[in-house]
Amino acid sequence: MDETVATQTRYRAMSDTPLRQYLAGLPEVRALLGGGPEAWTVREVGDGNLNLVFIVSGPAGGVAVKQALPYVRLVGESWPLPLTRAFFEHEALSEQARWVPDLVPRVLHFDADLALIVMSYLTPHVILRKGLIHGTRYPRMAEDMARFLAETLFRTSDLHCPAAEKKARMALFCGNTALCRITEDLVFTDPYREAPLNRWTRPQLDGDAAALRADGDLRAAAQRLKLKFLTSAEALVHGDLHTGSVMATDADTRVIDPEFAFYGPMGFDVGAFLANLLLAFLAQSGHEERRGERDDHRAWLLDQVEAVWTGFEARFRELWLRVGGGDAFDPGLFADEGGSAALAAAQDAYMAGLLADSLGFAGCKMIRRILGLAHVEDMESIADPDRRAACERQALALGRLLVVRGGELGSIRAARQAAERIAEGRTP
Amino acid sequence: MDETVATQTRYRAMSDTPLRQYLAGLPEVRALLGGGPEAWTVREVGDGNLNLVFIVSGPAGGVAVKQALPYVRLVGESWPLPLTRAFFEHEALSEQARWVPDLVPRVLHFDADLALIVMSYLTPHVILRKGLIHGTRYPRMAEDMARFLAETLFRTSDLHCPAAEKKARMALFCGNTALCRITEDLVFTDPYREAPLNRWTRPQLDGDAAALRADGDLRAAAQRLKLKFLTSAEALVHGDLHTGSVMATDADTRVIDPEFAFYGPMGFDVGAFLANLLLAFLAQSGHEERRGERDDHRAWLLDQVEAVWTGFEARFRELWLRVGGGDAFDPGLFADEGGSAALAAAQDAYMAGLLADSLGFAGCKMIRRILGLAHVEDMESIADPDRRAACERQALALGRLLVVRGGELGSIRAARQAAERIAEGRTP
Repeated sequence: MDETVATQTRYRAMSDTPLRQYLAGLPEVRALLGGGPEAWTVREVGDGNLNLVFIVSGPAGGVAVKQALPYVRLVGESWPLPLTRAFFEHEALSEQARWVPDLVPRVLHFDADLALIVMSYLTPHVILRKGLIHGTRYPRMAEDMARFLAETLFRTSDLHCPAAEKKARMALFCGNTALCRITEDLVFTDPYREAPLNRWTRPQLDGDAAALRADGDLRAAAQRLKLKFLTSAEALVHGDLHTGSVMATDADTRVIDPEFAFYGPMGFDVGAFLANLLLAFLAQSGHEERRGERDDHRAWLLDQVEAVWTGFEARFRELWLRVGGGDAFDPGLFADEGGSAALAAAQDAYMAGLLADSLGFAGCKMIRRILGLAHVEDMESIADPDRRAACERQALALGRLLVVRGGELGSIRAARQAAERIAEGRTP
Repeated sequence: MDETVATQTRYRAMSDTPLRQYLAGLPEVRALLGGGPEAWTVREVGDGNLNLVFIVSGPAGGVAVKQALPYVRLVGESWPLPLTRAFFEHEALSEQARWVPDLVPRVLHFDADLALIVMSYLTPHVILRKGLIHGTRYPRMAEDMARFLAETLFRTSDLHCPAAEKKARMALFCGNTALCRITEDLVFTDPYREAPLNRWTRPQLDGDAAALRADGDLRAAAQRLKLKFLTSAEALVHGDLHTGSVMATDADTRVIDPEFAFYGPMGFDVGAFLANLLLAFLAQSGHEERRGERDDHRAWLLDQVEAVWTGFEARFRELWLRVGGGDAFDPGLFADEGGSAALAAAQDAYMAGLLADSLGFAGCKMIRRILGLAHVEDMESIADPDRRAACERQALALGRLLVVRGGELGSIRAARQAAERIAEGRTP
């Protein structure tokens, strides 16, 4: 945690040989890999925006090694970023592992000074985003993600965690401000102003970007959501839960990369995931060789949007009723008949509010992926800029709708139908 | 801050002689008092629930000395309470002094080990609650309290304070959980269940207390507010802003005792103050020797309810527009014409939400003062239990209305009118 010590003493960015030496000194990792360091292969595969990622394979098995760099990899050394984010990632992974050990990678070793985490190598998993672009369907994904969201958000909230314990954890994660700041700027602010890091498909979307920047209602709604991001310490959120933060096979789902974790609004995680499914949906037509060939996949993607929310809601409510344990809504207060009806009504209102938040945050996440610094491969891999821009324009339309009117839609079905209408070129 | 050290080493509860010796060692305090310790008078005047309070007077002037005890004074050593609350009180006083130095006592000395704060002696101030019971009107009170609320809440919020700075302060105040816990239990939970510490005017209110405990909608609404208290880190709130935490003269208003301070919902402070004005209003008929003799004072109290809110709202909006400075609602995003209209609409919605929160919290605060552990002198000083119960029954009716339907009232005027109808024995 002491960043000064870390940068002044043992920290060095890893490369092939020093990494082999380092891992050879960790008995559990060495045994897992098998053989000696000379028998291992090391590949640097980090395609994210921030870190080094190595896959190390030995005769007996493999590990993934993630190391934070002291700057934003996507931008360079001109944008420094604290190494402590590895500490917060490890803390978040450990918390998540308490509730959904089968849905996160297993941590084998953490080195705070090196800002380095050694994890189980997930194979034959692929990044969910790449699978969805390819047209793959994951039968377990929606159920697993619903469970991940419900368990991690409920268990770390005041509906389950005693207040003193939660406040202590919250105080710790208040230290992860530099990562939160990235979200505050790139998700909630830059797309709505002329910012140097913004980029979009030019010249096709120039007019759309300008119209969006001139949209006062949209700006105000986005700032309302930013204020919620800054003030609502509802639960320990992953903080960057897009489809690039999930690795999947037919039979297994793992959520990775919680370095943006902090105590924030639950809807930010739910919305991030829904947004990326909706982006995958709207990108499909750009990947078709003949029109309509991906209609089934598109429908499947919207089914997942519904299934993630409905699965999340059902499990969250079940945990609230059956597990409880937090300082808010003590079940003992609602044990009588009138109490259980009142609690059910309170839960209805709570879940409606959470859906509204989720859809609003989803809209912000969609817009920033079209107009902001960091885009998504779903869209970027559409080579023809006219076809790409057509998909992206739909994403902007849906994003705007969700930011400004997400609270009025009232159901995940209504959100799905709005996405369908926009994809068909109709008025949302 | 290190409670272990504090309790194991220098901490001792003060009394007359050691306090004289201690103050004599503080040059600024000694000079302010004048003469030597043998010339001073020391009076222990703590009538609150938690601490020792000494007034020390010398030939040249006086000081107030507040010292935390390691337990709740009202209950005894069986209810331990950390001495660190003096640290948080000092931190909060220092923060408030940055923005409203004329509305808080001046801190002359703070000793973390002794959990002791030496402050300017406020004279001829009286506790606002006592003045209101007596029938005194304070011409500056509403304006001063509106300014205190607007300045302290706005300046410590994400509308003014940069996120990294706010998160660091928030992390610090996360340590004040023991005091928050008292509020969580006594304000939001105990009045709604059979709790050993509850007390009320018996047998007159037995039926009312039982009806309230059986009211599912009320319980659910109170828990919704408790969840907001636990999760909404909007600003550094005073945390206990009743009329016993204000000292006033015709010409001066000072807010004292912020030991419950933490980053919480703004409406909790606004609501606490409004609740205590409303309790003062509903208690007046119990203090009349002939019916109607306090009608003017009652109307004045309701005028203050309106004036505190409207003054607070006006100043808060003005600060937001003219000062800004925080990471949410960056004024640069709303500089154009469409932007200023959208910002005004967002502010309308924000203030409506804040009023709803404030009225809801006000309702919780009223109910707990009738059925919970800590009552208010406004009611307690009505000697005839039947007359007292009649006033308290009205307070319960108004409290319930504000908790369950405070969000629907839509204006402070509507809340005032509901109070008037209840005081007249009509349907709210």
